[in-house]
Amino acid sequence: MQTDLLARGRKVLAEQSFSAMLGTQLDAFAPGVAQLSLPVTPKLLQQDGFVHGGVLAYLADNALTYAGGSVLGKVLTSEFKINYLRPAKDAARLVAVASVVGNGKSQAVCRCEIYLESGDERKLCAAAQGTIRKAD
Amino acid sequence: MQTDLLARGRKVLAEQSFSAMLGTQLDAFAPGVAQLSLPVTPKLLQQDGFVHGGVLAYLADNALTYAGGSVLGKVLTSEFKINYLRPAKDAARLVAVASVVGNGKSQAVCRCEIYLESGDERKLCAAAQGTIRKAD
Amino acid sequence: MQTDLLARGRKVLAEQSFSAMLGTQLDAFAPGVAQLSLPVTPKLLQQDGFVHGGVLAYLADNALTYAGGSVLGKVLTSEFKINYLRPAKDAARLVAVASVVGNGKSQAVCRCEIYLESGDERKLCAAAQGTIRKAD
Amino acid sequence: MQTDLLARGRKVLAEQSFSAMLGTQLDAFAPGVAQLSLPVTPKLLQQDGFVHGGVLAYLADNALTYAGGSVLGKVLTSEFKINYLRPAKDAARLVAVASVVGNGKSQAVCRCEIYLESGDERKLCAAAQGTIRKAD
Repeated sequence: MQTDLLARGRKVLAEQSFSAMLGTQLDAFAPGVAQLSLPVTPKLLQQDGFVHGGVLAYLADNALTYAGGSVLGKVLTSEFKINYLRPAKDAARLVAVASVVGNGKSQAVCRCEIYLESGDERKLCAAAQGTIRKAD
Repeated sequence: MQTDLLARGRKVLAEQSFSAMLGTQLDAFAPGVAQLSLPVTPKLLQQDGFVHGGVLAYLADNALTYAGGSVLGKVLTSEFKINYLRPAKDAARLVAVASVVGNGKSQAVCRCEIYLESGDERKLCAAAQGTIRKAD
Repeated sequence: MQTDLLARGRKVLAEQSFSAMLGTQLDAFAPGVAQLSLPVTPKLLQQDGFVHGGVLAYLADNALTYAGGSVLGKVLTSEFKINYLRPAKDAARLVAVASVVGNGKSQAVCRCEIYLESGDERKLCAAAQGTIRKAD
Repeated sequence: MQTDLLARGRKVLAEQSFSAMLGTQLDAFAPGVAQLSLPVTPKLLQQDGFVHGGVLAYLADNALTYAGGSVLGKVLTSEFKINYLRPAKDAARLVAVASVVGNGKSQAVCRCEIYLESGDERKLCAAAQGTIRKAD
């Protein structure tokens, strides 16, 4: 059943033109948790050669929404905040791990950490928290 | 001098591969304010045909950072939050207007509104607030 | 009718034991806007003699909720964020001005500014943004 | 040494008139973590008999700041956001547990969970995330 959830999640991701263009992958998707990753490519960078903060914000938005959707079904993102901890450089891949902190029938509060992955190493790059709500 | 600021701001934007790929434009850039816009194209959409929330988050991040940079010089984004007010559909263009709410020597607190523009009409789509800090 | 709204708002505030203990006043309350104020007294301070950040956060929470309630009726606070702009010192009174940025039938996104008031002068001290939702 | 840290933290808390008035206690304080608690009394309530959201926001602000201060020394709170998960009722005590998610020399990003404690049971009531920075 969780395989089904993952398969469905990947289908939705494939239907997101924006995610497809960036190359985002859904690595894990189970009730209460989601992991998205994104290989770092030159098109994701800003003027100093770091991954653009907006890419991290996109990834947080998407991971939080997947986490909320894993317990609520079809959802909308109400809001989120993100704190940037270090410049996103020297990484082969960004990995966003999101989970549900608490939820009722119509809303879930979720958190997400984004890591810079390089070989075997992972460094925390950003942390996010937000509200996902059931679509009407 | 503000023309210079705008010219420099556009140069930086052109150096952001990510922004260039999306087609972001810097419409206005003066001390304390910045306006970015982004024509809506199919590559920006999610599975329901709306502009991906991550695109709005990217645009907020970038507009807030420009606003902060207009008073602080070279900057980093510390954090921001965004509230989504309506689905981003039926728009030809997204317009992000950001301004400095208050700043000291090393930090600026900025706000941003993102509008859906269609013909002569503008509807508020998202509202953001965040901290931009001077790069060391 | 707006007088009625103000009267009802003040009645609710009087029923908030916490607000009554602090001395919060509802100065204005009309559809889409609310203003709360709080005289600065020694009991509100932290270890350096500034008003405790938690007092500002309380005031923002309450002002945002009043603003949302002015258009939605009975409400709950979903979430908010606050940025502190300067230490809250040398003020006779804190003044929180909140307004609705946008709302649907069940939720309102609101913003709030908190000022330090001293004589005729007002300095911006904190800025907040959050979501207020209709109680079931 | 951690006993010293706890003793110093309690001294600071005792110097916060606002915290003393509310009855806040510092239960734990060690590098990277802090726990504050607050017995629920009638003076903390709002009009429906729940603990006022502003009390939770105060507690989050204070716990986040203690967590940041545990690694940075003398600090200021830059900003934070809080999500409310359930009304704060039927609790004898509020318990706020905060920790450092990541920090550099001048800033720490911290998270906090606030629990409603009643007998042996703890229910998550609110979740917060924010930035604490070193005082100059």
